[in-house]
This record gives sequence, C-alpha cells and structure tokens, in this order.
Amino acid sequence: MVPGRVYLVGAGPGDPGLLTVRAAELLRSAQVLVYDRLVSQDILKLAPATAEKYYVGKRTGKHVVPQNKITQLLVQTALSGKDAVRLKGGDPFVFGRGGEEAQALRQAGLAFRVVPGVTAALSASAYAGIPLTDRRLASSLALVTGHEDEAKGESHINWAALAGIDTVVFYMGVGNLPQITVRLQQAGRAADTPVAVVAQA
Amino acid sequence: MVPGRVYLVGAGPGDPGLLTVRAAELLRSAQVLVYDRLVSQDILKLAPATAEKYYVGKRTGKHVVPQNKITQLLVQTALSGKDAVRLKGGDPFVFGRGGEEAQALRQAGLAFRVVPGVTAALSASAYAGIPLTDRRLASSLALVTGHEDEAKGESHINWAALAGIDTVVFYMGVGNLPQITVRLQQAGRAADTPVAVVAQA
Repeated sequence: MVPGRVYLVGAGPGDPGLLTVRAAELLRSAQVLVYDRLVSQDILKLAPATAEKYYVGKRTGKHVVPQNKITQLLVQTALSGKDAVRLKGGDPFVFGRGGEEAQALRQAGLAFRVVPGVTAALSASAYAGIPLTDRRLASSLALVTGHEDEAKGESHINWAALAGIDTVVFYMGVGNLPQITVRLQQAGRAADTPVAVVAQA
Repeated sequence: MVPGRVYLVGAGPGDPGLLTVRAAELLRSAQVLVYDRLVSQDILKLAPATAEKYYVGKRTGKHVVPQNKITQLLVQTALSGKDAVRLKGGDPFVFGRGGEEAQALRQAGLAFRVVPGVTAALSASAYAGIPLTDRRLASSLALVTGHEDEAKGESHINWAALAGIDTVVFYMGVGNLPQITVRLQQAGRAADTPVAVVAQA
C-alpha cells in the first residue's frame, strides 16, 4: 500500500478568514483530521462530515494526549494509506511542537508537508493595531513562551537578552505575568515600558 | 461623500496559497490596489482587471516611492470614496511599515483594518523544514532586520541581546551577512551555531 501524506498545518488564530488558502483547501478535502484545543469550531466545520476527526488537545481536568500518542496516530494514518491533516493553532513551527512531529514522520520514512500559519503575535498585533516593529522605533522582535515546559525544571529564558530586544511578545504568558514583569525589570527593562495584555488572541 | 476604507493586508511570502482567505477575498473585490515589490505576479492576478493598481516598490536603479507619497495615495483614495487594498509582502506589522501607514490613516480620521499575513520567517521555516522553536531546545525566537534604516546612522541592534536568544532570524540579511556573523560571535554566540541562509523566501 502506498502510504498517505501528513500535512502539518497552521490554523492561525481561530478566525476562518485567517486560515491560509492552502490550509482551507486541505481542510475541505481532509480524510483524517487531528486537531488541537486552539483550533476553533468555525474552522473545524470546514472539514467534510465524513472526515475522521481526532481531538488531541487538553481537556479540563484531564491530561493532554501525550506527544508520542499523537505522532503514533499520524504515522498509523499515513501507513494505512490515508492522508492526515494535523491542524495546529497558529503556526506549526512556532511553539507548536511541529518540529517533534516532523522529526517522527521523517524517522518513519513518511512524506509530510508543512503549511505555515498566522501566529498569535501577528494576529494580536493586527487586531489591536499595535505594530510589532517600526523602523523609527523597533527593529527587533522576540517571541518567547511565557509558559515553559516543566520537564526543563528551572527557567531557560535568558531574561537579560530579552530585556535588550525592542518588542517582546510572551505566548501563554498570562499565568506568569507577575514573574515576567519582575524578571524583565530586574534585567534592566524600564518600569514604564508600554505593555499590552491580550488574552485568547 | 462617505470615505472609503483602507485595508492594510499581508500578502505572505508570494505563493497565492499562503494568502489568508480574507486577503484573497479582499483582493478579488479590490477597487484600488497599492502594492510592493515583494508581492508576486501570481497574487496580483487575483485582483479584477478593472481595479486601479499602483506599484509603490523599488525599481532597479530608481528610488523608492517615499513613504509620505504612499500614505498620501491611501488617504486620497479613501477620501474619494473608494476602498483601498494596501498589499504588503509578509505581514504588515513585521518590518512592513504598516505602523506608519496606520498612524497616517488614523491622523486623517479614516477607517482602516489590518489583515495579518504569514511573515517570511514562518514560511522559510515551513518550507525548509526547520522549526523556529522546539520545547526541548529553543523557547525564544527573535526576528530582526539585517538591513537597518540608514537614517538611523549607526546600528541600533543590540547584539549582546540577540546572542542570548535561542533562534534568531535576520530579514534582508544577505547583504550584511559578514557583519552579522562577526557581530554575533563577538557578542558570544558560538562559532559552530547551525545556520541556514535562505534567499527570496
């Protein structure tokens, strides 16, 4: 049997209008759809009713589907001859674990394609009307996870480095907001630096 | 007369499939289209033949259309009652001068919307198969212009800060590649740091 192909697809911030044209096409013809918590219902509705759909995100009070189970599902789908659309909020390669899935697919000798998406920093910026860069004011931009992997133990964030970047966007940062503001100021960021807090971008 | 609306729209990296669904819709119904050098012919073809099209990018051996002329064109179009689609390569708010245009439109009291796009770092990463972040290895990502505005005189890049960010992407960096590699190493980045050079992403 010819193995299927896996598409690692960025779904953008949730508005179906911010899917890429390619992502929308792949969704409309999906045989198997594997999706995350951050993918909206409006987007899922684009997939055919006949598509097999697997939810692999967090459920309240329950554990996440372990990453190795997700990659197993993708590998098995492809080996069964079906194409799989692996839909992720935002962009697959920006805080999306797309790298781990790509690596597993490669190790299994399976074909995959990555379709980039509008990552949350860009959509929050556009909708809030706050440019991330400006040639008069800000020529560097950092995206950083505000919610680090617990398996890493202590913080691996280089706060001194971040304090020297013009615009800094923390993903999933609301829970750690007090620590983030303290750490940045300890690292030299001015206390009167303008800040926007955007939830559920 | 009711003024028209201006849409500041990210066109993504050039592949029409990487336009957002919203950007493609706006293009297909555009009355007036104002576009840059980085917007591809395949994308421009989506606009109606009857749309007024203004090219405001660089021409070989000629000067760029000054930014104030571009904003003037957008303001005049809106004041004449027409909607304008201002199409920019990538994302309007990441090294795209969208902020300057938004500011001018706001000062003129005109309505505008920003439609985010897939910025070059994301598309280059997806197509090259190189994740920008990985929870096991890289929890921070910086995007920085490798081609600073000459009006600023000396470099405003904080090289020490950049050297402390896990993944660093330079936009328009090919011309300054020797300086970039030297400056990063002087700032403490290891000489054996893996690098990908992507042109015309």
